[in-house]
Amino acid sequence: MSVSCFDHPFLSGLLGDDETAAWFTAEADIAEMVRFEMALAHAQAAEGVITADAAHAIEAVCRDFTPDMDKLKADTARDGVVVPGFVRQVRERVDPEHAASLHRGPTSQDLIDTSLVLRLRHVARLIDRRTEAVVAALDEASRAFGQNVLVARTRMQRALDIMVGDRIAAWRDPLIRTRRTLSEATTHLCYLQMGGPTGTLDPAMGRWPAVKERMGIALDLPVSARSWHSQRDQLVAFADALVRLSGGLGKIGQDVALMAQDEIAEVTLAAGGTSSAMPHKNNPIGAEILVALARFNAVQISAMHHAMVHEQERSGAAWTLEWMVLPSICVATASGLATAERLISGISVIGRAPLAG
Amino acid sequence: MSVSCFDHPFLSGLLGDDETAAWFTAEADIAEMVRFEMALAHAQAAEGVITADAAHAIEAVCRDFTPDMDKLKADTARDGVVVPGFVRQVRERVDPEHAASLHRGPTSQDLIDTSLVLRLRHVARLIDRRTEAVVAALDEASRAFGQNVLVARTRMQRALDIMVGDRIAAWRDPLIRTRRTLSEATTHLCYLQMGGPTGTLDPAMGRWPAVKERMGIALDLPVSARSWHSQRDQLVAFADALVRLSGGLGKIGQDVALMAQDEIAEVTLAAGGTSSAMPHKNNPIGAEILVALARFNAVQISAMHHAMVHEQERSGAAWTLEWMVLPSICVATASGLATAERLISGISVIGRAPLAG
Amino acid sequence: MSVSCFDHPFLSGLLGDDETAAWFTAEADIAEMVRFEMALAHAQAAEGVITADAAHAIEAVCRDFTPDMDKLKADTARDGVVVPGFVRQVRERVDPEHAASLHRGPTSQDLIDTSLVLRLRHVARLIDRRTEAVVAALDEASRAFGQNVLVARTRMQRALDIMVGDRIAAWRDPLIRTRRTLSEATTHLCYLQMGGPTGTLDPAMGRWPAVKERMGIALDLPVSARSWHSQRDQLVAFADALVRLSGGLGKIGQDVALMAQDEIAEVTLAAGGTSSAMPHKNNPIGAEILVALARFNAVQISAMHHAMVHEQERSGAAWTLEWMVLPSICVATASGLATAERLISGISVIGRAPLAG
Amino acid sequence: MSVSCFDHPFLSGLLGDDETAAWFTAEADIAEMVRFEMALAHAQAAEGVITADAAHAIEAVCRDFTPDMDKLKADTARDGVVVPGFVRQVRERVDPEHAASLHRGPTSQDLIDTSLVLRLRHVARLIDRRTEAVVAALDEASRAFGQNVLVARTRMQRALDIMVGDRIAAWRDPLIRTRRTLSEATTHLCYLQMGGPTGTLDPAMGRWPAVKERMGIALDLPVSARSWHSQRDQLVAFADALVRLSGGLGKIGQDVALMAQDEIAEVTLAAGGTSSAMPHKNNPIGAEILVALARFNAVQISAMHHAMVHEQERSGAAWTLEWMVLPSICVATASGLATAERLISGISVIGRAPLAG
Repeated sequence: MSVSCFDHPFLSGLLGDDETAAWFTAEADIAEMVRFEMALAHAQAAEGVITADAAHAIEAVCRDFTPDMDKLKADTARDGVVVPGFVRQVRERVDPEHAASLHRGPTSQDLIDTSLVLRLRHVARLIDRRTEAVVAALDEASRAFGQNVLVARTRMQRALDIMVGDRIAAWRDPLIRTRRTLSEATTHLCYLQMGGPTGTLDPAMGRWPAVKERMGIALDLPVSARSWHSQRDQLVAFADALVRLSGGLGKIGQDVALMAQDEIAEVTLAAGGTSSAMPHKNNPIGAEILVALARFNAVQISAMHHAMVHEQERSGAAWTLEWMVLPSICVATASGLATAERLISGISVIGRAPLAG
Repeated sequence: MSVSCFDHPFLSGLLGDDETAAWFTAEADIAEMVRFEMALAHAQAAEGVITADAAHAIEAVCRDFTPDMDKLKADTARDGVVVPGFVRQVRERVDPEHAASLHRGPTSQDLIDTSLVLRLRHVARLIDRRTEAVVAALDEASRAFGQNVLVARTRMQRALDIMVGDRIAAWRDPLIRTRRTLSEATTHLCYLQMGGPTGTLDPAMGRWPAVKERMGIALDLPVSARSWHSQRDQLVAFADALVRLSGGLGKIGQDVALMAQDEIAEVTLAAGGTSSAMPHKNNPIGAEILVALARFNAVQISAMHHAMVHEQERSGAAWTLEWMVLPSICVATASGLATAERLISGISVIGRAPLAG
Repeated sequence: MSVSCFDHPFLSGLLGDDETAAWFTAEADIAEMVRFEMALAHAQAAEGVITADAAHAIEAVCRDFTPDMDKLKADTARDGVVVPGFVRQVRERVDPEHAASLHRGPTSQDLIDTSLVLRLRHVARLIDRRTEAVVAALDEASRAFGQNVLVARTRMQRALDIMVGDRIAAWRDPLIRTRRTLSEATTHLCYLQMGGPTGTLDPAMGRWPAVKERMGIALDLPVSARSWHSQRDQLVAFADALVRLSGGLGKIGQDVALMAQDEIAEVTLAAGGTSSAMPHKNNPIGAEILVALARFNAVQISAMHHAMVHEQERSGAAWTLEWMVLPSICVATASGLATAERLISGISVIGRAPLAG
Repeated sequence: MSVSCFDHPFLSGLLGDDETAAWFTAEADIAEMVRFEMALAHAQAAEGVITADAAHAIEAVCRDFTPDMDKLKADTARDGVVVPGFVRQVRERVDPEHAASLHRGPTSQDLIDTSLVLRLRHVARLIDRRTEAVVAALDEASRAFGQNVLVARTRMQRALDIMVGDRIAAWRDPLIRTRRTLSEATTHLCYLQMGGPTGTLDPAMGRWPAVKERMGIALDLPVSARSWHSQRDQLVAFADALVRLSGGLGKIGQDVALMAQDEIAEVTLAAGGTSSAMPHKNNPIGAEILVALARFNAVQISAMHHAMVHEQERSGAAWTLEWMVLPSICVATASGLATAERLISGISVIGRAPLAG
């Protein structure tokens, strides 16, 4: 299927990003849930909550686990989350003697949110690198053309001359600042989620602080005193930063599309899009796509903020809403960065040479 | 890939809808574009614009056409639309003598928008039938439980008793009205798109009114005097109606989730979701999903309205934005209807029996 | 205060519309609530539910009613709606003998929603007339310049020549269609709201069908069998049509701003905005404002769709959300129409004269 | 006028906040623009760009300046910004000999953005204090009731018991974190805007670094090397933090409304709203208002992100869009904090006493 342009056989070439999308496959998600269960089992074994044999039995199954995806789909439809079905499938394969030692303590959300932040951390790194690359491309453009002259335009009208470097700085600085904010937001977001059914963990099951500590080390995630099941502010802050990043790219795209107008011709781009009807055209596709992605993300971010109205200890409605928009926000941001880098690197001229003085 | 929950191996079981999604595959899209080219060739042949031999040669290729999808993806990335690459692939396979007779006159948007409305018409039918089914389920529930008593609640507080039939009527009537509006919006939307590069068709190519008339008959689409390339109001009106439909379902979901609270227990649902941690729970998954889908669509619709700011004769940015959200709006609506029907049909009691009088 | 640009001493000159805003004053709202109480009292008197003397006593107070606004503000803060405080103020002034005959049967929502649709009907007429005026201005522009030549532009690049009339038609037709839809939506929306506390009216209070019929005649509103307290689809459909109207204007504004660029100069506008720093500039203010208003409304409409998730018999949260955005949507639409008419009427040339043939 | 609930004679009692709104009056805005002109004149005099006499003449007029608001409204309608009209009014009152020394160098945006951040800094302080007060109220509630028992609820169903303190912690921690982020965002945002017509200041006018430095000291604002005319990321980051704050309050409101349901009765609130029809009701108005404000802001934030697509050196469309939503976001956030504090302080019980052990 291909309801989303990001999953679509041909539209994903234009709008999507395979490298980022790879973190949102069912397989990638399940791989992290499997790591979660292994980390939990080993931590519980080390703390004497389950036996070492049980932990090894669980690890053995997890290492080789491939889900029956059709069954998982049907179970998810019934349960509203993938985890009960996932745990059933894993448990069936564990020696019955140790089956009860699997998934002792956590709730669905612990697996899903932990899997999410483990993958978002990779996405954040990828976005960080790409932002750096866009900034580098802008710096290179500034070195090459920064001394050229450009007519500043305000309210869509010619104002006075500026240097090309002035406009490029206005493109670059928001990316630099937002990159830094995203890095901080990622740090604040990426914590182990481990709260059990109600966020408070069953004390009877024992030794949670130590178990969590060990899980955090195994998964390379910091551990907080409380679970963040119903506290979604850091996830929203992360998404906010992504969307500001694509907003900054949208400005670049809008500016380039305006500069590329035939009569204005302040920029010369690498070969653009061809037309099925007009061979003479050289469409600034990348620039338009940056605008489309920015507006897409500017719309999606609203859903993330609505999802903060997350009732009680777990809202099926609000939490599900996050699943419906966050992966797309990530891919749209990453795709925009790749598009921007190509667009900027493909500029052969901006502005006009300054008059010899 | 599975960036979107609607395309996702297991989340699509919960949130997606395979039957609707089938209209948004690359294959379904290309199938309609192929039909467009055949209808155009035959119409132009009938009007003497191209030869009958050419039309037959084109048809022969089109009938068997299977795209090289990787190439199409790369071409779409460059051109911003699939059509130039698609036409190149078809043309390569047509006898060189007739190759120039393929795709004479239209622009990319003619194929893409016509393909879209041909498929949206199917989607609208499916949604119409499902709405009817939800209304029927509500009527059935009203017959079964309508005389039961329910505490009306205003501002989340108990007010006075009403009959279950009163609340069900408030669920049903918006669906009935919106179903009718959607039907009208579909009628107004589903017109042949045929305007050529700038929406005005090249008169030198000749005989357009007759060619369009014939294409309309072949594709079973009415024909308008002007193309609607840059006039997106009817598409937005169509989306508005869909989103109002899912808003109506969201109210049902919210009400059911509230009625299903343990202490209130005004509704008994068919077995709900299981929990990985709490075997006693019977979660009202379907009800929550209706709320999530309604909020998702309430967010997405904003993008459709932004896309009306469609500059000049074709906006790459605004048009692309439609592609990014409209399929998801359709699937979310259809999925909500299926979920609602299951939810309502699975109700075993609502309200309490009236006191014998 | 002037938190909103529409209420602001100087920004309202740019973005607001005094004529439309007049329908959203506290005074205009209270005037309709007063009419509601009078219509109710007379209808109940005619049906023998209250005495004729009571009705006259109520009318006498209502005719002269001026609220203590500070008290109303404090009461609204406590009650969440204005009506309890309003009724208290009216009742205090009614002869104690008849005081109990005031406000027999309705709930707050009956007054507020009825007052709303009575005023929205005026707003709809105003918007209808203004849309007609914009269409007339476009027709006049088409008569004057329609035969001029313009370069069609697709994806921000020059395509081929079209006539100015072609582009104007693409501006006009969505307005014509949406005007028609708005008229239908207004008809479907403007019904008497009269349902009592839970939407079902207290049968013990008696003779409701006849009372409602009489109220409908007095207020010139059709009457429905059921109240629409929790059925907000028609209100949202009304708002959807408004926002499509401003979307259509946004396209005009975007196009004009692009045509007015110095190097392109495809349109000559009446004197535009001056600059505090650059006397040579002639900014296309009206065109930009149309874009800003369109995007504003494209954002706001999302809230109206969220408000359809209106739980139970009355949602304080969802209903309040309507109050927070609907007046602004109306004013933004009306203001856009006035701006568009001025902009279009002020065009002294579009396009270039066709070559003599 | 009272298009907006925040400016409305009685609705502002429920939804608005007079203290915050005071920062968004025309008078407050003009007061800061006047301070800007004085700071500029004195700085330029100190650097020898204008004479000390001119600076004193300008200050004398500025100190007493009261605008002709009707004229300002008409001028804003024409110019798209208030500044040209404002400067004309000030200049008319300055001795002609010194009139040319007024407003030497800046553009409209310098005054408007500097005035904005000067006022947003006050708003941020007010919001900071109120957030602290809400956190304090939560801490007090936790001290009083934290050891009480509450049924945790997930997916709207009873899960297992937690302590009241567990839920309160989930309300409080997002506020604490977001308060910190808002403080940082405010610091990053509140910079002098001083770029002249194109953001680069006219070097011929001379001594800008020193003039800016002096202005910064006078206005107590840090100074950046470049203007941020077209770099709106920090303004959006500021708004993002506000909206996350109201999202956090929305969760509290939703939880309280659910807890206050009659059958559940997990919270006892101070007297709530009265009903015009049902004297027995005690509506949790404040809780519902928190939800409405959160959803309102979750919608508005989308506009701020769209406004990042700010073309060229100044976008009339994108910049105007900020003016249309940012004040409302600020007031909705502040109003929510005041509402939350009242709501929480008015709680007389949450949860049930733990069984004696």
